[in-house]
Amino acid sequence: MTKERLYLFDTTLRDGAQTAGIEFSLEDKISVTALLEDLGVDYIEGGYPGANVVDTEFFSQKRTRRATFTAFGMTKRAGRSVGNDPGVQALLDSRADATCFVAKAWDQQVVLALGITPEENLAALAETIKAGVEAGKEVLVDAEHFFDGYKSNPGYAASFVETALQAGARWVVLCDTNGGTMPFEIEDIVRALPVDHARLGIHAHDDTGQAVANTLAAVRAGVRHIQGTLNGIGERCGNANLMTIIPTLALKPGFADRFEIGIDAARLHDITRISRTFDELLNRAPSRQAPYVGSSAFATKAGIHASALAKDPSTYEHVPPESVGNERSVMVSQQAGKSNLLITLKRHGIELAKDDPRLDTLLRHVKEREARGYSYDGADASFVLLARKTLGMLPEFFDVENYRTSVERRHNARGEQIAVTEAVVKIRVGDDLLMSVAEGNGPINALDLALRKDLGKYSDQIGDLELVDFKVRILDGGTGAVTRVLVESRDGTGERWYTVGVSPNIIDASFEALYESITYKLLKTEAPAQIPA
Amino acid sequence: MTKERLYLFDTTLRDGAQTAGIEFSLEDKISVTALLEDLGVDYIEGGYPGANVVDTEFFSQKRTRRATFTAFGMTKRAGRSVGNDPGVQALLDSRADATCFVAKAWDQQVVLALGITPEENLAALAETIKAGVEAGKEVLVDAEHFFDGYKSNPGYAASFVETALQAGARWVVLCDTNGGTMPFEIEDIVRALPVDHARLGIHAHDDTGQAVANTLAAVRAGVRHIQGTLNGIGERCGNANLMTIIPTLALKPGFADRFEIGIDAARLHDITRISRTFDELLNRAPSRQAPYVGSSAFATKAGIHASALAKDPSTYEHVPPESVGNERSVMVSQQAGKSNLLITLKRHGIELAKDDPRLDTLLRHVKEREARGYSYDGADASFVLLARKTLGMLPEFFDVENYRTSVERRHNARGEQIAVTEAVVKIRVGDDLLMSVAEGNGPINALDLALRKDLGKYSDQIGDLELVDFKVRILDGGTGAVTRVLVESRDGTGERWYTVGVSPNIIDASFEALYESITYKLLKTEAPAQIPA
Repeated sequence: MTKERLYLFDTTLRDGAQTAGIEFSLEDKISVTALLEDLGVDYIEGGYPGANVVDTEFFSQKRTRRATFTAFGMTKRAGRSVGNDPGVQALLDSRADATCFVAKAWDQQVVLALGITPEENLAALAETIKAGVEAGKEVLVDAEHFFDGYKSNPGYAASFVETALQAGARWVVLCDTNGGTMPFEIEDIVRALPVDHARLGIHAHDDTGQAVANTLAAVRAGVRHIQGTLNGIGERCGNANLMTIIPTLALKPGFADRFEIGIDAARLHDITRISRTFDELLNRAPSRQAPYVGSSAFATKAGIHASALAKDPSTYEHVPPESVGNERSVMVSQQAGKSNLLITLKRHGIELAKDDPRLDTLLRHVKEREARGYSYDGADASFVLLARKTLGMLPEFFDVENYRTSVERRHNARGEQIAVTEAVVKIRVGDDLLMSVAEGNGPINALDLALRKDLGKYSDQIGDLELVDFKVRILDGGTGAVTRVLVESRDGTGERWYTVGVSPNIIDASFEALYESITYKLLKTEAPAQIPA
Repeated sequence: MTKERLYLFDTTLRDGAQTAGIEFSLEDKISVTALLEDLGVDYIEGGYPGANVVDTEFFSQKRTRRATFTAFGMTKRAGRSVGNDPGVQALLDSRADATCFVAKAWDQQVVLALGITPEENLAALAETIKAGVEAGKEVLVDAEHFFDGYKSNPGYAASFVETALQAGARWVVLCDTNGGTMPFEIEDIVRALPVDHARLGIHAHDDTGQAVANTLAAVRAGVRHIQGTLNGIGERCGNANLMTIIPTLALKPGFADRFEIGIDAARLHDITRISRTFDELLNRAPSRQAPYVGSSAFATKAGIHASALAKDPSTYEHVPPESVGNERSVMVSQQAGKSNLLITLKRHGIELAKDDPRLDTLLRHVKEREARGYSYDGADASFVLLARKTLGMLPEFFDVENYRTSVERRHNARGEQIAVTEAVVKIRVGDDLLMSVAEGNGPINALDLALRKDLGKYSDQIGDLELVDFKVRILDGGTGAVTRVLVESRDGTGERWYTVGVSPNIIDASFEALYESITYKLLKTEAPAQIPA
């Protein structure tokens, strides 16, 4: 049996931007697009050109290599032509491959919110779609309030869909705008629609905790296009979570045997990483409970479950954790811990025997430090330094005798408020004692500049070292809590590495991560000469 | 039409205790039981007496007033009588009203994990149930692996259910143990079972994000007993979330019109408080996105949505937020329009006319500041201060002339590395110039302590001000980027508020958020006297 193709449409950058507390910068949008291309979705909806500066700038270039680059916006206003509607023109002028026009499919709302007749609404819809098609765009339509509209007036909702398809829309996407529709209603309504189901899509929200179920119910009823977001972000309770829907479509009976999505097993294996990277970008802790990708998704606590798992994994694992790039986590045993360490060390070119006693010491160090707030999952370079230090394989490149940093806010000679930030570091490189001072636009920037100002004989080697990102997480509440700082660095070779620092003092935690970043860079360069391979 | 009764069974204290990172003390169990009684569930499963000290102690007394107090445990082992099985005896001897026995309904697992024949399993099940009934308990059975078992051998799974019902079990609960079953499968399998559906229950897990949908599908197929947990805690991805299921059953068409649950409108109104209190007890931040009870569940950010909401709430609210004791929250953001501003201002007691020109000025200020990195959707208190300042309604309580903070890492007299952090602030309160100094475990902590040390005539008013949380977000990459700091504060009245600061300098951004937190606190206290209502 040939499988039918389902198309995945990601709206993280558009509907996901409605999430309370989330605001994407242009750089964020570019990073998220790269993640979505890694994942392999078919459409990336990047925002609403013309609505704000970031989105307009984002659509001034073509931003995707593979996915259909999609702009969102409204159909033309009644009473003016498409040519005279600057909103529609901004969409047609953008560098998007496709445009997704939203319009209301609920006649009452058309009258109440737009103040036009239901017929004028359909005419504006058709005219806008035709203009989009003529401009060379693939056109999609978000049928807003479709399900509530259908319940109130099935005839109008159905003619909305028919009008859009006849006008040339490739997809009409049925939206459960307020998120209140039940799966059985979705299934009944979709089945009853007298149109070509292979041109319908679903857009579900999680207001009753059923966005995933509503999406899958619509697919069973015939739609072939799915809208959702990374980690289910979105307005109110969020949109349908693609991180849950994709593995279900790819792996579960009833879907995997009937449908094909553009995401093969290798890409699916990457989904846990993509989910967690996205949370990192949002600077929030990933949900442990998240289906498939959460750190607890394949965790078991009960001893009896653990032993049953050993006999037959399917008892408590509905899919193999490896299939989604996640891993089983059974109560941490000394043995399980060691095999993890061995694998990680090997990845960094350090081969140890399974019974090497230094492995126990390293495991103890890792556990002690993780108990204090360190996290080596995201800080490979710091793990390498800790491992090499424990194993006696880390040369001492330079040492910091002391440092001092100060921030002062005061008035300058012209009476303006200014903040002056300064850092002083004293380091030892071999027999040389070097002291440097620098100003920065913050204490950590000043420390970074002072540290790198003079590294003696190593100065040349860090010329291409660049700090890419800097993340701060407060591990408990309050300003007196422990702070974890994660620094991302990169050099001329294109390699990126991550280091971590932990302290109640944010400056000290940052300094530790900066120091380790420089040390790792020197290790990369010096290691061939100093350490037997 | 008379409605059918559905029975709610809470397993927070038993299956919920399998959650990674959650461990209930005896006191916790007593507190959670009180919460569950407030909510009004029919059954409270308190744990597994005999399995550990806490659970045995918990079941040494009757702990519920209204709900059926239920103990969990295994059916007797094959090869010994019920009287000789200490596990079963501990259950029968406990002060529970009911016992829920778990046994495997998948013949392969019976053979593989227990090493007995499928027939021996059924005989042990029947004998255990009879002993429970004879001991005066209401008996429930958790049919473990029921759905996987049914798919593998429908005859055996069905005879498991029949055996349990014939032996006298009040309820047989169909368990989707590994959480991998789809709603359509649940519905088909439940319907096909040739037994009295009014004695069946459902126990679902969230491994495909469909625990709620699976539960509701089972109800539609005939089961009349529902197991779940507070906030969906539980092993792996969690159990079915009663905080989502209860409002759906009570409010949504297709359920509310057909079924009755033992929770009236007044108790339903308490569900948001109960959900958040439970998270407080677990010492974790409540999920903002949670259906019905999350702080974002009725939040809207887009300006067009806000104006539509004002005309007709059903457009973006599928149920009234008050019905579950939650509230609508309209956020101020880049996407906001004037209607968001008006609604937010009104909530803070400031009524302006729609055409007040100061509204345009305020909107411009908000957008300018958001473009610089501020985010007001998570910082209501800072928004109030900005609005009052723009409208000329903010008294100047105190002003900061200058501040200075320093961090020094050096060796102490004993040769140990130490970090010393100090802050000095100079503030003006009326005509008084006050200077304070403090040490802290980080520069922001030191600044906070120094700022609050002496506020002159306002010192008494901030005695109960407490910083609860502190979040740092770097808005672009690198240590030279803009930093946004969000501070959460609370006072003796229990009110919490959020302030935001933005600067390339993390110290300056933190200082701004701290300053605004104190100003907001003073505004709360002083406003009645200083600002015309």
